[in-house]
Amino acid sequence: MPGEFEFIDWIRTQQKAGGIVSVAAGDDLAVLDWPAGELLLVGVDQVLDGVHFDSAVHLPRDIGRKVMNRNLSDCAAMACLPAAAVATVALPRSASMDYAKELYLGMKEAAEKYGCAVVGGDTASWDGKLAMTVSILGRSAGIRPVLRSGAKAGDTIYLTGPLGGSILGRHLRFEPRIELARELAGRGVVHAMIDVSDGLSRDLRHICRESGLGAVIDAERIPLHADALELSKYTGRPPIEHALHDGEDHELIVVGTSGLGSPLIEIGRMVPGEGIILRTGAREDRLEAGGWEHRFEMR
Amino acid sequence: MPGEFEFIDWIRTQQKAGGIVSVAAGDDLAVLDWPAGELLLVGVDQVLDGVHFDSAVHLPRDIGRKVMNRNLSDCAAMACLPAAAVATVALPRSASMDYAKELYLGMKEAAEKYGCAVVGGDTASWDGKLAMTVSILGRSAGIRPVLRSGAKAGDTIYLTGPLGGSILGRHLRFEPRIELARELAGRGVVHAMIDVSDGLSRDLRHICRESGLGAVIDAERIPLHADALELSKYTGRPPIEHALHDGEDHELIVVGTSGLGSPLIEIGRMVPGEGIILRTGAREDRLEAGGWEHRFEMR
Repeated sequence: MPGEFEFIDWIRTQQKAGGIVSVAAGDDLAVLDWPAGELLLVGVDQVLDGVHFDSAVHLPRDIGRKVMNRNLSDCAAMACLPAAAVATVALPRSASMDYAKELYLGMKEAAEKYGCAVVGGDTASWDGKLAMTVSILGRSAGIRPVLRSGAKAGDTIYLTGPLGGSILGRHLRFEPRIELARELAGRGVVHAMIDVSDGLSRDLRHICRESGLGAVIDAERIPLHADALELSKYTGRPPIEHALHDGEDHELIVVGTSGLGSPLIEIGRMVPGEGIILRTGAREDRLEAGGWEHRFEMR
Repeated sequence: MPGEFEFIDWIRTQQKAGGIVSVAAGDDLAVLDWPAGELLLVGVDQVLDGVHFDSAVHLPRDIGRKVMNRNLSDCAAMACLPAAAVATVALPRSASMDYAKELYLGMKEAAEKYGCAVVGGDTASWDGKLAMTVSILGRSAGIRPVLRSGAKAGDTIYLTGPLGGSILGRHLRFEPRIELARELAGRGVVHAMIDVSDGLSRDLRHICRESGLGAVIDAERIPLHADALELSKYTGRPPIEHALHDGEDHELIVVGTSGLGSPLIEIGRMVPGEGIILRTGAREDRLEAGGWEHRFEMR
């Protein structure tokens, strides 16, 4: 990109100190005045051209929004509040400054919706494809982080929304379930949580493994997204398979006490043992992980 | 890479809770118990194949070390202690698991040398070139962060070591000047600091701009690295040009009170005005930014 240093100057006009941010981007590191007694949660997610998006088809603002929302969804899964983020962009040399600005604005819009400040980053041009990363800092803000390991035998398994077929476009437009997660965790009714990024069959397995338990889920109760129905017309696979194995829905798998009503959708329960049993009527099958394999293509 | 999930399992065996790390990698986010009253410093740097390294020539362990050390050098420039890091790797599909492990071990070795825990990350394979990022969290630990903006007119400008020709190999093997920076900042004699990543002529300019000042430096005082002399044989450019404009030395530009002795090397002083004057004997030239342009090639 011509004008890389101009772009960095422009970014700095977008970033302001305030709140816990003492020094925003523009120095070697940003400086945050971390609130006393609050746990700090940290993680990172990347999006890569041809894997998580297709730069030939998708708008740069959507790509920027996606990489930020993936991280915000991790905050939701831990029931923390996003506080600050830093980002990297590896830009193809052919990218214009306007394109780079759109990437940035997509990230910023998604972050600001949840009060998260973008406080730093690193931009470079290369003879490669577009790659972006966001690292997120979350704060516990009065609610103990919800881990994957806290599920108990007998706990009910819920979803926050329907699954499947996100590749038809929803993978760019999902909303991180931060408020709902905070509300539930604040009531103390949630024991374990994860967001569906790699597919229900794979992500529920993480909760099983970390909690040392198994799970039984009912095929009939798994909410099918309209996109799962639509996609099955093209793939010939039953919609339930898309709901079980597609990734990037970014709904939450919530494990907790029984009787949590709407908007949660009950799909099963945690049991002693290991692995996941899928119940379809009287039939019981062992559900293998068939989640999303991180490659952007119609399957 | 085949076995991406196996690799993630392996990484988790490398990461342990302890110290301020309550929950290491393995959940959606890592959880840190941030020490009360300590400022949090955060930033990110990436390395890209063909720009910051050449995967055809450089060892994966060196590449991993470099991306971590770039971030540790940012900590040095702010005089903070590195506390934790998260990383991403975008791996070419042809990369083996052993290769990925070497990248990781390079990062980890560099981090652990300074007590920094690698607490999370994101790995994906793609039809693209190798790209890595590290986001670093630093803590003030009793020393106020040193900004670029704190220089005062009359302050002395120092370097922590000789410059130039890092492309001959030193760009992979530099040591972040964390102890020295902490020692100096702890004595209260430092007003502004930055590490030389883009070249002295460009990085000193950041201090000038942020502090609202100019600088005068003496060509004869700028310490030439042996690599600057060696490289000038190939490029035909005088060694001083490599010392002024080459990047990735990762020595510190320290601006502070006069009379700070060894190991600091005095090269000039801050003056009212703007821009940088290079003095060579009786001659004075305006020094233009000719720093490193982020592309890996012999120039």
